Amino acid sequence: MQKKNEYAIGVDLGGTNIAAGIVNSSGKVILREKLPTLAKLGGKAVLGRIGQVIDALLLKVDPKIRKNIKGIGIGTPGLVEHEKGIVREPPNLPGMDGMNIKKFLEKRFKVKAFVANDANAYAVGEHTYGAGKGTKNMVCITLGTGLGGGIIIDGKLYVGSFETAGELGHVIIRKEGKRCLCGSTGCVETYVGANFIADRVRADIKKGKKTSIVKLVNGDLSKINPIIIEKAARQNDKYAKNLWNELGAEIGTALISIVNTLSPEMVVIGGGVSKAGDLLFKPIRKQFQEIGFSFLKKKVKIVPGKLSDDAGVLGSSSLVWNHI
Amino acid sequence: MQKKNEYAIGVDLGGTNIAAGIVNSSGKVILREKLPTLAKLGGKAVLGRIGQVIDALLLKVDPKIRKNIKGIGIGTPGLVEHEKGIVREPPNLPGMDGMNIKKFLEKRFKVKAFVANDANAYAVGEHTYGAGKGTKNMVCITLGTGLGGGIIIDGKLYVGSFETAGELGHVIIRKEGKRCLCGSTGCVETYVGANFIADRVRADIKKGKKTSIVKLVNGDLSKINPIIIEKAARQNDKYAKNLWNELGAEIGTALISIVNTLSPEMVVIGGGVSKAGDLLFKPIRKQFQEIGFSFLKKKVKIVPGKLSDDAGVLGSSSLVWNHI
Repeated sequence: MQKKNEYAIGVDLGGTNIAAGIVNSSGKVILREKLPTLAKLGGKAVLGRIGQVIDALLLKVDPKIRKNIKGIGIGTPGLVEHEKGIVREPPNLPGMDGMNIKKFLEKRFKVKAFVANDANAYAVGEHTYGAGKGTKNMVCITLGTGLGGGIIIDGKLYVGSFETAGELGHVIIRKEGKRCLCGSTGCVETYVGANFIADRVRADIKKGKKTSIVKLVNGDLSKINPIIIEKAARQNDKYAKNLWNELGAEIGTALISIVNTLSPEMVVIGGGVSKAGDLLFKPIRKQFQEIGFSFLKKKVKIVPGKLSDDAGVLGSSSLVWNHI
Repeated sequence: MQKKNEYAIGVDLGGTNIAAGIVNSSGKVILREKLPTLAKLGGKAVLGRIGQVIDALLLKVDPKIRKNIKGIGIGTPGLVEHEKGIVREPPNLPGMDGMNIKKFLEKRFKVKAFVANDANAYAVGEHTYGAGKGTKNMVCITLGTGLGGGIIIDGKLYVGSFETAGELGHVIIRKEGKRCLCGSTGCVETYVGANFIADRVRADIKKGKKTSIVKLVNGDLSKINPIIIEKAARQNDKYAKNLWNELGAEIGTALISIVNTLSPEMVVIGGGVSKAGDLLFKPIRKQFQEIGFSFLKKKVKIVPGKLSDDAGVLGSSSLVWNHI
């Protein structure tokens, strides 16, 4: 638990940028830094740049605050060996595979460091500072390029025996469905990941479906993305509205399996695609009403995430308090 | 944790019979009793009969053992409010709805009593005495009339925020699939529950499928059950062998969703239908090889349960040690 006047550094390691910040006990980012990742320069160079971003924060911050920084949390793509703090096979950051981020940070900055998968870090962030504050058992999903997940059990991040728990994008909704990159078929991610949505819209347009999306991108179908599709739906485009309804139903179906497994008090949904708001939450909640136990329908809350633009930094910083 | 020379009473409350036993620290049932449930007489009568079965055990047991009985565990159909020990909506035992079994037992026998859903109790039993001994995070499924489940996290039964965790029969494998009694569509239970299997075989036979099952039941299709279907497959009946392969693939698909969610070190599979052994485990394991993360394929063990005919009593008795 974080005390008043205690601070943590959060680092959000992405394929494009490294964003970092110092977070106070109210969950506010009081100082921010950012550097391009330059992943092509290799893993060691990226580690060095993570160090640089943190250096910049420490240089600028009030010394009184500096001495109350209790740790560094970092969220990264890929699988993570949590105890050791090693990252495995991060997509977009191939050079980082096998790197011990925890050891590097602890040696260089002489504070405790904690590493987690970025979707897991986000779940801890929503639990510490956001929509899931005060819950005991909570599930969090992030809708972006893929569908990421994180599970809080008894107030702590749950990673399971092989540190892969919460891979909720690979909950199957159609046994005979689309082949997923992971090897299975019909994983929910293959229906609701941002790229898959855009691919589907392009295919539908080529098949002759009428939609104002074509006009919104001036005929350049490569520009189709969830923001454009949301815009079309807000302008009452029938195709786009239907699409959001379908996407919501797909996500709702996966949530039924997850809730029947975990019986959480809350499901928090964040990530870029979730910004479609009601267009997505209405059909998710509608589908969820199909769940078996009638009292679960009423009790399990399905809510949007509360951490907005700072979600990555806040989530990463909260790893410090999840462990201490 | 159970100590040497400590004993527990396990009561397996079913729609037809109440089975009970005294279990020693090696997980052996040293004394057994059984009574018909006579559910039609109502909830109070059933409570009375539970008391009677336990009375009979206490009367017969060596007094030295009697004074070392540390508690009573009871597994029941339906949902359970664990802290209070109240059972809710048990199928086949409608009169028991809302009954406080824990209070009744503690008042009458002056020892601690613990109540759980029967599939949950079985999971605790496999974790305490059976295949899952020593595991930290484990999933257990029972294949019978339905598909029941139980989840062990950090060595303890996990029931979630609404005490319904582990309803693994209602993990969805086909969004557009068969309507389930629970309200959802495509729940794995609707494909692999014993009655659904028999219904399907009858439908297939009526459609003209050739199988030796017809001969094995002397043309009386109402006699079809998993034991008969196993027999046919063992006699090399092509239809029956294919059917087990399909059933295994359905279960394997649900397991992929469950393992991607929970990352357990082991999945234990028990219950009557699991006695088909290799006929079922081979296709389950084959399907599971489709799972995403290559190292999970190798690491997560999928094994048959080890508690056999005493499973109900052992599982129920182990609830005592799960709590103490």
